[in-house]
Amino acid sequence: MISATSDVQVDTPEVRVTRWRLAPGSATGHHIHEMDYVIVPVTAGEMTIVAPNGERSKAQLGVGQSYFRKAGVEHDVRNETASEIVFLEVELKP
Amino acid sequence: MISATSDVQVDTPEVRVTRWRLAPGSATGHHIHEMDYVIVPVTAGEMTIVAPNGERSKAQLGVGQSYFRKAGVEHDVRNETASEIVFLEVELKP
Repeated sequence: MISATSDVQVDTPEVRVTRWRLAPGSATGHHIHEMDYVIVPVTAGEMTIVAPNGERSKAQLGVGQSYFRKAGVEHDVRNETASEIVFLEVELKP
Repeated sequence: MISATSDVQVDTPEVRVTRWRLAPGSATGHHIHEMDYVIVPVTAGEMTIVAPNGERSKAQLGVGQSYFRKAGVEHDVRNETASEIVFLEVELKP
């Protein structure tokens, strides 16, 4: 599995913003969100979410259509489409 | 002056996310940021920033190129270009 790539755009005492790029066939790898976060899609796309128990679901991204999640979310995020997916993750420091 | 338009995408105890659309010739109007915030541009563009003393400056937006500002910023934001500018404002609730 190809690894998603990331670069940190902002890192202050209040917030960290990371841009994620998922090439076709890539994945973030299994991870636990330690902070509350907002996702801002930069591209449209369909992500495949794999839960710790292996259950798979699909999530549709719309350009600039943000959503919020609480800390504790645990998953792998994969791009099984033919197009690159790019989004920003805005993590809210406690 | 035409008014910028906005819609709130997320509003939780932790964070508020607002999408701003600035048509050509529009402005947000003078405002003070009460909360720390992150801007995530959805379009590229050039914003004209007008400080309380009337001083004007230009700010370049790149798609998905975020930046952070502390609460207390006070300005009017205008789109004096021929293209719509869209960005998300992620406000961090204290």
